[in-house]
Amino acid sequence: MSNFGKLNSTIIQSLISVTGQDRSITEPETLKVYGKDHTEDFVYLPELVLIPENTEQVSQIAKICFENTIPLTSRGAGTGLSGACLPVHGGVVISFEKMNRIIQIDDINYQAVLEPGVINEQLQLAVQEKGMFYPPDPASKGSCTIGGNVAHSSGGPRCVKYGTTRDYILNLEMVLSDGEVIWTGANVLKNSTGYNLTQLMVGSEGTLGIITKIVVKLLPYPPFRSLMLASFASATEACACVSSIFKAGVQPSAIEFMDRKGVKLSVQHQNISFEQKEENAYLLIEVDAFEETALMPQCEVIYNVLENHQVLEVLMADDSETIEKLWKIRRSIGEVVKRQSIYKEEDTVVTRGNLPELYEYVMQISESYGFEAVCYGHAGDGNLHVNILKNDLSEDIWQNQLPEAITKIFEKCKALGGTISGEHGIGLVQKPYMSIVMKEAHFNIMKGIKQAFDPKGILNPGKIFNN
Amino acid sequence: MSNFGKLNSTIIQSLISVTGQDRSITEPETLKVYGKDHTEDFVYLPELVLIPENTEQVSQIAKICFENTIPLTSRGAGTGLSGACLPVHGGVVISFEKMNRIIQIDDINYQAVLEPGVINEQLQLAVQEKGMFYPPDPASKGSCTIGGNVAHSSGGPRCVKYGTTRDYILNLEMVLSDGEVIWTGANVLKNSTGYNLTQLMVGSEGTLGIITKIVVKLLPYPPFRSLMLASFASATEACACVSSIFKAGVQPSAIEFMDRKGVKLSVQHQNISFEQKEENAYLLIEVDAFEETALMPQCEVIYNVLENHQVLEVLMADDSETIEKLWKIRRSIGEVVKRQSIYKEEDTVVTRGNLPELYEYVMQISESYGFEAVCYGHAGDGNLHVNILKNDLSEDIWQNQLPEAITKIFEKCKALGGTISGEHGIGLVQKPYMSIVMKEAHFNIMKGIKQAFDPKGILNPGKIFNN
Repeated sequence: MSNFGKLNSTIIQSLISVTGQDRSITEPETLKVYGKDHTEDFVYLPELVLIPENTEQVSQIAKICFENTIPLTSRGAGTGLSGACLPVHGGVVISFEKMNRIIQIDDINYQAVLEPGVINEQLQLAVQEKGMFYPPDPASKGSCTIGGNVAHSSGGPRCVKYGTTRDYILNLEMVLSDGEVIWTGANVLKNSTGYNLTQLMVGSEGTLGIITKIVVKLLPYPPFRSLMLASFASATEACACVSSIFKAGVQPSAIEFMDRKGVKLSVQHQNISFEQKEENAYLLIEVDAFEETALMPQCEVIYNVLENHQVLEVLMADDSETIEKLWKIRRSIGEVVKRQSIYKEEDTVVTRGNLPELYEYVMQISESYGFEAVCYGHAGDGNLHVNILKNDLSEDIWQNQLPEAITKIFEKCKALGGTISGEHGIGLVQKPYMSIVMKEAHFNIMKGIKQAFDPKGILNPGKIFNN
Repeated sequence: MSNFGKLNSTIIQSLISVTGQDRSITEPETLKVYGKDHTEDFVYLPELVLIPENTEQVSQIAKICFENTIPLTSRGAGTGLSGACLPVHGGVVISFEKMNRIIQIDDINYQAVLEPGVINEQLQLAVQEKGMFYPPDPASKGSCTIGGNVAHSSGGPRCVKYGTTRDYILNLEMVLSDGEVIWTGANVLKNSTGYNLTQLMVGSEGTLGIITKIVVKLLPYPPFRSLMLASFASATEACACVSSIFKAGVQPSAIEFMDRKGVKLSVQHQNISFEQKEENAYLLIEVDAFEETALMPQCEVIYNVLENHQVLEVLMADDSETIEKLWKIRRSIGEVVKRQSIYKEEDTVVTRGNLPELYEYVMQISESYGFEAVCYGHAGDGNLHVNILKNDLSEDIWQNQLPEAITKIFEKCKALGGTISGEHGIGLVQKPYMSIVMKEAHFNIMKGIKQAFDPKGILNPGKIFNN
């Protein structure tokens, strides 16, 4: 662990002079806003927040922090679920809220050049207007930034067909810890020119460098989609159904799993009219296409598979109101769980064929430890979000027994070919569990990489591993 | 640069005892075979070749080389075009020819687990039998290995629709320089768990670790395809046509560019009956689909675009013999150029919209320096292979002026948003040009990464950059 320098008033003044007074924050109440994200109820106060407007300012900030060994943590919209943007060692937070321009949309080469503060959904809509498609769509797409998405390699429902953020990043402009500016690659679809720093940066949670420009790949926009909601008496059977759909030769653009509790909470909290009968789980399945006629054949294949998996009911959502309602139920589960109780969210991921076994194991663990688990997520990717609710569990059980239960769940993930985070990242909250999936030699390589990029250890210290 | 140890007879004996006498080579004539690849006419003799049969043996070999600081270079089939597998500092070559098992094909999760010596085409055929698809298809697919493909992030014609090798690698078992064995990730479709060592390994040309198992992602196999050959009077117009095809909303599974000379050489050397009239360039365009009826609509859109770009003639190849012939012409160009003259091959890549400008610039440079250039490649990816023929150029011009011409071409690539290698890698032959696209700070990061993985610098020394 680095010995950090003190952020004294001289350094603060020189940092503020980079962005200007109106682009810096020192008042405690406002600092608090930048000390939180969407992860549980953590608050870690930064000492200074800077809101740069261009790469040059970011570079100057890094230079000053480097010279004085001041912790420097990048922040997008603060919608992360692993605590990755929390300045646990204080110091400076750089907020990208004013570096939010779409610099270029190139409809010849199907690329866009962005500043990191661009909101995911704004990018989607802007390129869609020109007939193009940026697929990654986290549940927080209305507020999360592309910079944050890159930092975590964020996913979302569509990733089952289109891949995660990682698959859309062609090139990055980044500021190194000492203020140097480099581009990690080139704006091309294929590149075998040296080590792939672009992909190394994706998912590195701001610990290796500060991303200041992002070149993304775009696809043609498929304008037609169908959505169906299938309900099951057995959640395990719903999970098992997922592999069978792919085996039948269909590539859905989303296969989302929701358990009964998640849907119940979501419709209750939002006053959505939705009747639950004897079903215990749901699959929300979307297909998309470039031709409307290509939808129904896909739906028919899926319908046959569902029938072979003891589906109770299949609702075809063919009006935009129902489609909107069903997606709202799904997208809101994470939010409503938070309002229900203190909770912990685990972002488990396994091969999709092992999803039924993972789900059953989670249920078994929740029973033996006596906690309530709400499960939902991207079943087509084998990515199950396990929300563990505190409800009226004692503080003792919550603090002392829960980590043991989580460890068991993660060990099961590993045994099933998976790992401990599919799309949320490690940040602060999953750090204690990293040794379940990584050997010491693996950690040593990561530490060496960290050292190469950030010799003073000032970039987002205390995240992913003990660096 | 490391000070390497001497490979004395004691060390040689302990290395040979790992694989056994019948899996080791010390005779000079056979060593020569392992001192060459498909890059120009280079020969760098290894001192010892070992042919391990499992990860444990590779680990033991690495341990001995690490302890004694002996250079250790991994080798697939030796079909590389950048000299990446040549043991320029002597030492030990590990050949993966006997680690060539397809360990598992998983048709539930659409994955396969491979040893690095599996031949690309064998994998393709094995998974196709089960209705699955491994898209990356280098021209050398009949002989190149998946391990070599991973080392270079190899491409091929289909990558324009399906991405390069990089996009199919889920997880790697690797032996570190000191013999430790780790898995880089997990067998899952999405992973946000620490630094992405998997993608860092892809394209690192054996300089960071030794890959011993590979988990690849598979797709459903699209069984229907159409192929058309379009001829143009203007090569620039052929290049310009490429962007227009994508703009029209079609996603071909290949768009290959060939200039007149390349096709002429290919058909001559192979005695293929193929008449050339006034055309100067060709596009070989393939579309694929899951339904036969989906082919013709795509072809019609493409045909209209071709007509708008002054196409001379369009040949629809609808019998397997013609399809085979056209692909043979394309795939053989690289080989026949070699038989024609001493040559150098550059693997230029730019955004596809800039392809016409790159092509014209290459022609201009070849004229001003007086060399003959044969151009062909993956136009849909903006990836143009420029083959420069020596013919009767003086040795002086070849040695002294050519590097200047190549530098200019690469500088142009950079100016057009591109870089110096799309799919062949840097290896030995492109190393002198790396500073065109990388700043010193970028090199320093790469050196730091190399240091983290390979502190003694024994893994494939002298490649990519001066490490």
